[in-house]
Amino acid sequence: MSGAESVNQQRLWQRHADMAKLGGTPKGGVNRQALSPEDAAARNQLMAWAKVRGFEVFTDAIGNLFVRRAGSDTAAAPVVSGSHMDSQPTGGRFDGMYGVLAAFEALEALEDAGVATKRPVMAVAWTNEEGSRFQPGAMGSAVFAGHYKLDDMLQQKDWKGVLLKDALAETLQTAPAPARPGTGFALDSYVEAHIEQGPRLENERKTIGVVTAIQGSRRYIVTIDGEEAHAGTTPRAARKDAYAAATRIAAAMYEATTDADDTLRFTIGRVEVAPGSPNTVPGKVVFTIDMRHPRNDVLEAHEKTLEAIVAAKAAPCPAGIERVTNVAPTDFDPKVIGLVRDKAQALGLANMDMPSGAGHDAMHIARLCPTGMIFVPCERGISHNEIENATPQDLAAGTRVLVEVLEALANR
Amino acid sequence: MSGAESVNQQRLWQRHADMAKLGGTPKGGVNRQALSPEDAAARNQLMAWAKVRGFEVFTDAIGNLFVRRAGSDTAAAPVVSGSHMDSQPTGGRFDGMYGVLAAFEALEALEDAGVATKRPVMAVAWTNEEGSRFQPGAMGSAVFAGHYKLDDMLQQKDWKGVLLKDALAETLQTAPAPARPGTGFALDSYVEAHIEQGPRLENERKTIGVVTAIQGSRRYIVTIDGEEAHAGTTPRAARKDAYAAATRIAAAMYEATTDADDTLRFTIGRVEVAPGSPNTVPGKVVFTIDMRHPRNDVLEAHEKTLEAIVAAKAAPCPAGIERVTNVAPTDFDPKVIGLVRDKAQALGLANMDMPSGAGHDAMHIARLCPTGMIFVPCERGISHNEIENATPQDLAAGTRVLVEVLEALANR
Repeated sequence: MSGAESVNQQRLWQRHADMAKLGGTPKGGVNRQALSPEDAAARNQLMAWAKVRGFEVFTDAIGNLFVRRAGSDTAAAPVVSGSHMDSQPTGGRFDGMYGVLAAFEALEALEDAGVATKRPVMAVAWTNEEGSRFQPGAMGSAVFAGHYKLDDMLQQKDWKGVLLKDALAETLQTAPAPARPGTGFALDSYVEAHIEQGPRLENERKTIGVVTAIQGSRRYIVTIDGEEAHAGTTPRAARKDAYAAATRIAAAMYEATTDADDTLRFTIGRVEVAPGSPNTVPGKVVFTIDMRHPRNDVLEAHEKTLEAIVAAKAAPCPAGIERVTNVAPTDFDPKVIGLVRDKAQALGLANMDMPSGAGHDAMHIARLCPTGMIFVPCERGISHNEIENATPQDLAAGTRVLVEVLEALANR
Repeated sequence: MSGAESVNQQRLWQRHADMAKLGGTPKGGVNRQALSPEDAAARNQLMAWAKVRGFEVFTDAIGNLFVRRAGSDTAAAPVVSGSHMDSQPTGGRFDGMYGVLAAFEALEALEDAGVATKRPVMAVAWTNEEGSRFQPGAMGSAVFAGHYKLDDMLQQKDWKGVLLKDALAETLQTAPAPARPGTGFALDSYVEAHIEQGPRLENERKTIGVVTAIQGSRRYIVTIDGEEAHAGTTPRAARKDAYAAATRIAAAMYEATTDADDTLRFTIGRVEVAPGSPNTVPGKVVFTIDMRHPRNDVLEAHEKTLEAIVAAKAAPCPAGIERVTNVAPTDFDPKVIGLVRDKAQALGLANMDMPSGAGHDAMHIARLCPTGMIFVPCERGISHNEIENATPQDLAAGTRVLVEVLEALANR
């Protein structure tokens, strides 16, 4: 039996059900925020399963939890797979957890199949990917990759004022694991499985998303200054209506960001209109833009367009657009991408290349080693929601691709 | 000397300054809300001035305060002029108060000129026009006209829970005046002077606005239901973006309400976008529309257009538009309008016909008798604001027109 053939769909599904009890909500979702007692319980659960199989476990200084299946070359850097076990406050059962359990299932499948690998293969649960309790998100992988400083992160506080440092210590006391000092070590390669969190696979009836990149994202704030005036007495010609200007700007932006292949993501998510009185002409409007695309040059060109629209459409209101964040796209490694595509193909699984719309831990690890991702469908694309759902078949299919890819990487 | 020649600009201006001390704010405006101690002080001030001139004063059951200069025909119904003395919490010195002081100046000017009239001429300060402490506004004139029931109004409460009935009793105790039982009596005619509260007279360099009507106003709430979705992962084709739909609707509405003569007033004043997260596609938008025009048929036609736009532009989001208020236009009496225009002309004052954008007490009194209004400019059209301003010259000019009109009405 191959590794893929040894993937146990029932076992994988049951483990999702077991983990969903830890922080489980009445609506069937989970509330398992980073470094909470529920997070500690999930760590203990994962370590208990690892112990049964005789896999080594250890943590690093930011609490990333590793499970290691040894390879034949004791000097070789490991092939690593995983994701995160923390959730949004009203999160689902699959976001992150699937990547951890798929990686663990891959280790077990290799074990069950009696497949030896040259390099060690490791599963990882990165600390605090969601960033809902402690900011910023994708923290564990970012610290691992040297993108954030450990000491800065340890000083972060949650909204109750609890230091991350203290929450981490408590978590590691509740879920003790052998600690490796510091953070970061050499990786051979990294592959992360994840639910898509979008509707494309489902809509196009594909089982596997071959993730080519994590798209870049930029955020902007548009501010329009008008002049408050009486809605009944002020003629249009005498108005500086900030919301009329905002509407002209937004309409032009929606039009300018309508691309033929529906790849650019353009969202106006937050809109504040002041003073907000039905019979007063708005004196001020502030709105946010979230724009994403896999290619930086496309984002750059559209940024120029957005700036031109604000300049052209705001009159008679002074207006400005300010970029507040700029996360460059992450291109995954062509060899890993090719491997994912080939293995999905070989397993007879309908697949498509696609960028990831959301950020993932793989974004940071891609700076360290050849990296890729595998997506599986989730129901109606709904995620960050207690009704998040996926099928046992799709989860197992993604894991079969994963184990094949990991084996290939570990033996190349 | 004629009545107009007897208008005393300095006296009129000084009285505005005196009244501005009652509830005066550090920024030079007034906070003299209905039936407050400041309102009572203004009543006492007006009555003191009336007493000096030997004019009769009395109140009715809703606290409207009348000052009466007798006519020769003791059976004749009075010609009445006035406005209100209550202000917004951060109001100006002229809104309402000008109409009361102009009417009182008219009485004094007739007295000073020794002009006898057949009918009595009365100044009135209507109770609670602003509606900022007790709802609804224009209360005193509406009760006088039988539009609201006295007993209902007496039971209204302010935000602290104080009954209007009790606030009224306290006011009349502080500012006692002979009371006429009940509310409402026969009027011959009514003319109200007011600052424009809009920029048209100033922009067109006119001194007198010959008010032909109070425009009708309708309010609507537009509700658009979308579907919350991840801003990074959800393609445009899979979105039900409530704010994109709202923008299409608003843009089409702004365009459809752009009339050639800039008479229609269309305002989107309050906009709520939920959940209001920068990286979530909006799931719901609610916005208000305030639409006004002097002609009811124009409002009716535009209402149909707004409905059609919501139906046409909302897809794929379900959306609806609901009318929440509908105040019909008030057309003033052609003879009173003609008289205002003729007297302004005769006095050599640059004037223009115009509808009133805002509601006024004259709206209710127009149901009872021939009614008209006279506007004078206010600086930059700013009102309901502590920086509200007007010139002594314009205030006196409006009063000169007023006294001529009142004399003509009282002697016809």
